[in-house]
Amino acid sequence: MNDTVTPDWIAVDWGTTHMRAWAMSASGTVLAAATSDQGMGKLQRDGFEPALLDAVGPWINGPTTIIACGMVGSRQGWVEAPYAATPCPAMPETFVQAPTTTPGLSVHVIPGIKQVHPADVMRGEETQIAGFLARNPNWDGILCLPGTHTKWVHVSANEVVSFQTFMTGELFATLAEHTVLRHSIAADGWDDAAFSDGLSDAMGRPEKLAARLFSLRAESLLNAQPGATARARLSGLLIGAELAAAKPYWLGQQIAVIGAGGLAKTYVTALAAQHAPATQVQGEAITIAGLTAAYRRLKG
Amino acid sequence: MNDTVTPDWIAVDWGTTHMRAWAMSASGTVLAAATSDQGMGKLQRDGFEPALLDAVGPWINGPTTIIACGMVGSRQGWVEAPYAATPCPAMPETFVQAPTTTPGLSVHVIPGIKQVHPADVMRGEETQIAGFLARNPNWDGILCLPGTHTKWVHVSANEVVSFQTFMTGELFATLAEHTVLRHSIAADGWDDAAFSDGLSDAMGRPEKLAARLFSLRAESLLNAQPGATARARLSGLLIGAELAAAKPYWLGQQIAVIGAGGLAKTYVTALAAQHAPATQVQGEAITIAGLTAAYRRLKG
Repeated sequence: MNDTVTPDWIAVDWGTTHMRAWAMSASGTVLAAATSDQGMGKLQRDGFEPALLDAVGPWINGPTTIIACGMVGSRQGWVEAPYAATPCPAMPETFVQAPTTTPGLSVHVIPGIKQVHPADVMRGEETQIAGFLARNPNWDGILCLPGTHTKWVHVSANEVVSFQTFMTGELFATLAEHTVLRHSIAADGWDDAAFSDGLSDAMGRPEKLAARLFSLRAESLLNAQPGATARARLSGLLIGAELAAAKPYWLGQQIAVIGAGGLAKTYVTALAAQHAPATQVQGEAITIAGLTAAYRRLKG
Repeated sequence: MNDTVTPDWIAVDWGTTHMRAWAMSASGTVLAAATSDQGMGKLQRDGFEPALLDAVGPWINGPTTIIACGMVGSRQGWVEAPYAATPCPAMPETFVQAPTTTPGLSVHVIPGIKQVHPADVMRGEETQIAGFLARNPNWDGILCLPGTHTKWVHVSANEVVSFQTFMTGELFATLAEHTVLRHSIAADGWDDAAFSDGLSDAMGRPEKLAARLFSLRAESLLNAQPGATARARLSGLLIGAELAAAKPYWLGQQIAVIGAGGLAKTYVTALAAQHAPATQVQGEAITIAGLTAAYRRLKG
């Protein structure tokens, strides 16, 4: 925290578990950054403004515009920002203002996007998509946004055409932590060959997933399979099942994977094994670019 | 608990979370029953004998034979009873005696069964299989034993030929309790049509499972899908994925589903929808029949 920073506006990515904020210049330069563990999931409606001021108060000196994306705009968030429906631009025409008590503070929340059929929703990813399109105007293809709930998004003519969410990240965490597999899966470590094997097994016979899961336990009991091998194999099995189901999205398309470090790289590696080359794009920079695009739209 | 009972022997089914015991006559009649929440998962090696005496002490009056199956014979149990390897009879020739300090108490633990490739294990189900075969000698076909870890078992010529374990029950519980789906899935309630839809969706396109999971959340957010509907649909999706993967087991075979009440009935219904008629057999009676078969073998 730097109390000499005087931003023109503040960018906020407010998810379920964490909040990240950036002090911004009007031209879109990051002057300072702050984080907080006061995610949406921990806050009542009247807790958002105090949590925001805790994190970025020293940056606020007079009237301040704040642009926020993510679960802060959900029904359980600060203010509900109703979903736009596909097909639609990633960045909507208007935002929703959150109720505030601090004089001069105006908080604008970016709506998420819904798809009516098959039913699906996103909040936060739309801002990354808008940021990606701000940097790559008229880009046409498939964006993959790996995470707790990985999104595959078809983008064309600067619109979100359709998308599909996979619970792969949450499945991995819950299988490794809350089931009998916890005795067989290491908390870290990796095995490239086991990941590849799991990936190709699941791509070839995706319907076998539920049976292959227990074999991770049996292999550790009978053959002392190392925990890091089981960990990489589980990741391969789950990502393989996801790629098999998402094939109508990515086959023969231009692909970009948006995300930080390891997980996004794992998806790029998995797609490469299917002869589907993908570009990796850093997630945080793209989020800031999306919030900056929203600020520019607001300021007309 | 009835302290006037004088059994000829005691039958014990000792799993990870619970222990059930029956005071038995030599001819296999149940004289009394007892249960305990002192499952294998809660006990150190020296805790098993006291836990047993807590539950069945009043039945013990002089030398007593106890026959036990389940996780009590695992590496973390009272005594390790090494797995028999498929193909093998469900009931082995010999049992493993647990160390005891009470004079006259002899505890015989039934070994589980392993399959080397694909790696798989069972402990406790082998006794149910033996009980089923004791009642249905020379039966040939597929046994389905639904539970936390559902087993599909190919039985022929009074042997276990092969088997496959699915984590379906544990997946259901962990998805409903530990993921974002917990907000959308009711703790009870049911919807037959939603179960059938989920089942046929998953049977038709089993590779789509990971994507369909998140749609349960989206349907509740966008279309206020009731929690009981989501619960039945999740069950249909998971059992459908299991039936799709287990098809090489059950297709065109004689099938019996072993288990108590609701879950086993759900499998019978699901199989019927695939034109695969299955007989339902009560699990507890079959477990006791298996333990009785072991007692008879021990007594020669």
